[in-house]
Amino acid sequence: VNPQDHIEGTFNVTYRHRVMFERQALLEGTALADVLAPRSGGTAETLVVLDQGLVEQTPTLPALVESWFTRHSTIATLAAAPLVMPGSEDAKQGLSPVVDPVIEAIANAGLCRHSRVLAIGGGAMLDAVGLASSLAHRGIGLVRMPTTTLAQGDAGIGVKNGVNSPHRSGGKNLVGTFAVPLGVINDSTFLLTLDDTHWRGGLAESIKVALVKDSALLDTVETHAQALTNRDLDCMERVLMETAKLHLRHITDGGDPFEMELARPLDFGHWAAHELETQSNWAISHGEAVAAGMLIDLRVGEAMSLTAVGTADRIETLLRQLGFLQRPHTAAQSNNLLVGLEHFRQHLGGKLTLCMIQEPGVSIDVHEVDMKVAEAAIDTVLGGLPH
Amino acid sequence: VNPQDHIEGTFNVTYRHRVMFERQALLEGTALADVLAPRSGGTAETLVVLDQGLVEQTPTLPALVESWFTRHSTIATLAAAPLVMPGSEDAKQGLSPVVDPVIEAIANAGLCRHSRVLAIGGGAMLDAVGLASSLAHRGIGLVRMPTTTLAQGDAGIGVKNGVNSPHRSGGKNLVGTFAVPLGVINDSTFLLTLDDTHWRGGLAESIKVALVKDSALLDTVETHAQALTNRDLDCMERVLMETAKLHLRHITDGGDPFEMELARPLDFGHWAAHELETQSNWAISHGEAVAAGMLIDLRVGEAMSLTAVGTADRIETLLRQLGFLQRPHTAAQSNNLLVGLEHFRQHLGGKLTLCMIQEPGVSIDVHEVDMKVAEAAIDTVLGGLPH
Repeated sequence: VNPQDHIEGTFNVTYRHRVMFERQALLEGTALADVLAPRSGGTAETLVVLDQGLVEQTPTLPALVESWFTRHSTIATLAAAPLVMPGSEDAKQGLSPVVDPVIEAIANAGLCRHSRVLAIGGGAMLDAVGLASSLAHRGIGLVRMPTTTLAQGDAGIGVKNGVNSPHRSGGKNLVGTFAVPLGVINDSTFLLTLDDTHWRGGLAESIKVALVKDSALLDTVETHAQALTNRDLDCMERVLMETAKLHLRHITDGGDPFEMELARPLDFGHWAAHELETQSNWAISHGEAVAAGMLIDLRVGEAMSLTAVGTADRIETLLRQLGFLQRPHTAAQSNNLLVGLEHFRQHLGGKLTLCMIQEPGVSIDVHEVDMKVAEAAIDTVLGGLPH
Repeated sequence: VNPQDHIEGTFNVTYRHRVMFERQALLEGTALADVLAPRSGGTAETLVVLDQGLVEQTPTLPALVESWFTRHSTIATLAAAPLVMPGSEDAKQGLSPVVDPVIEAIANAGLCRHSRVLAIGGGAMLDAVGLASSLAHRGIGLVRMPTTTLAQGDAGIGVKNGVNSPHRSGGKNLVGTFAVPLGVINDSTFLLTLDDTHWRGGLAESIKVALVKDSALLDTVETHAQALTNRDLDCMERVLMETAKLHLRHITDGGDPFEMELARPLDFGHWAAHELETQSNWAISHGEAVAAGMLIDLRVGEAMSLTAVGTADRIETLLRQLGFLQRPHTAAQSNNLLVGLEHFRQHLGGKLTLCMIQEPGVSIDVHEVDMKVAEAAIDTVLGGLPH
């Protein structure tokens, strides 16, 4: 052997990512059949996993699913009775709550790499089921049917999954994979069952992606703030469609779908948000936490003369109109939140990279944040919340 | 929403795969520094995981590793003391033996997505550590240093990992991911510590890849059979280098690196081999099992008039010269092995696809195998083994 001996090659893999919008997808829709049908003909053996919270809200859901498969038996068959799994953050506490049982169900049903998993539920449950289906046989095609505004606009659109690690604080999404779903079906009729907190939740991510990428969407949300608060379904659907589109385009056209680089524009405001969620033991919802987290970073940006003056006030007004920033955050202290910057730096790599807003639709990466400035911004935002 | 509303995009990801050959890589080599060094400068925080069996053979290994990092502290630092983990099939019995503790060590050491994991050991342990490192932070760069002939020619070269499922029989590699390592370093000096079974093990995979892709390699192995049996290190190194090259080229140039299609030429002979291994509770080594599995498929191929007459005898002679086919397989019965075809079909998808050999270097896919023919071939091969 000679020191220069080495063999090397490169290869390309092409991924297709699609999001379909359809009301009553389990009743009269065609999207589910399109996505499930095997490319090479035959029927797709499908394991269906349902979010427990959703089934409690809509007890007819398992029967609705079974009836869909009965009507489409030439395309797809149920590999087992629909599996009901815990939703919300309970789903993500390590592998035990959802990942292990879904892998076990896949094994017991004798599914193969060309079978499918259909997951219907909120973002946390989709994350956990997505991890399980990406691991079984090294990847079974996943169809996501997100049922919350957060999942339809954001969590369900991404190409990543994950669960939290029990091993340490800052272990949010420590265990996961990048995996492109076979397809995502956004059925807005699921949104009718949401409580007000979950109804508004996804709008925080809409405002986020608007601030980072598209000021027109911000204008839309402002114009329709009252209709959105009044639970206008058409209006919510349009906003989520625009949100999902910006998110999907970021993945497909942004040049870094599997996040090999440090920049994470879609994580704007999320370092503080993650801490608010975890430190409140998930009493503070993701949407609520992102609302506060964005406002903190806008105030940091203004203090650093990066962000146009007035942007933070404008967004604070909008968030309040929509019903955000009205929950007490007594558990969170500014010195506790600052650790989020360190967790974020660790997750990314050695170098902190934060997305900041210059003006709505225009973002910039920064690599240093003055701790005193961050602390003051946190104090201002948390001080504006009810005690 | 209109039934036609959907958003779709595609994206490409380019992967680089490289295998370096270097003796004494931890002493005087340069390959490890090349692979570990961060692209963007700075030092790579590295978690080192060592195969317990190897450390028992070479107790100085942890000190050797620590000394390498001391000498290269401008490039890479040890994130923690080298972690010693079980090797061989013990490593792959679910997530508990290796995957969980490695993820925990990554979390405790505060590693990030730009840190590295260096795994030194046999194929089973590389598989389990590979799964852990592909899951932590959704993928930490893995450097593999395979230490057996099987791992240097085959298992360590692949772009997949996995562990077995405890949930059912046929759960071999049920839980895993596709993940391209940062680099693979084949240091042949590790092979000096192997017992004869492990020394010859990788040659079964060399013969396999030769039968599927390159008759010249088969000629080489035949010509040097005596030298290989006499543990000629230069000769083994050349054969493994050619084996690794054919494997790597299959991945990078074969058009299906992540095995989305049904054809799996590199799984030639493996349906029976997997059953021999699992049914013997891993008393039969992988190399030994692949030797018998290939011979079964060559005899099936001859009976089906797919394989040139005489090929099976030629390979049986070579395998016996190298020391294979000399272990009793009393546990395996032909009717027990046939289930392997069903497990293989399930893992692939609904349609059985087996690689068969027409003549050395030329393969063909078949989708049906007569069970009586397979049973007779199994009986012939198992009947030729010691009882």
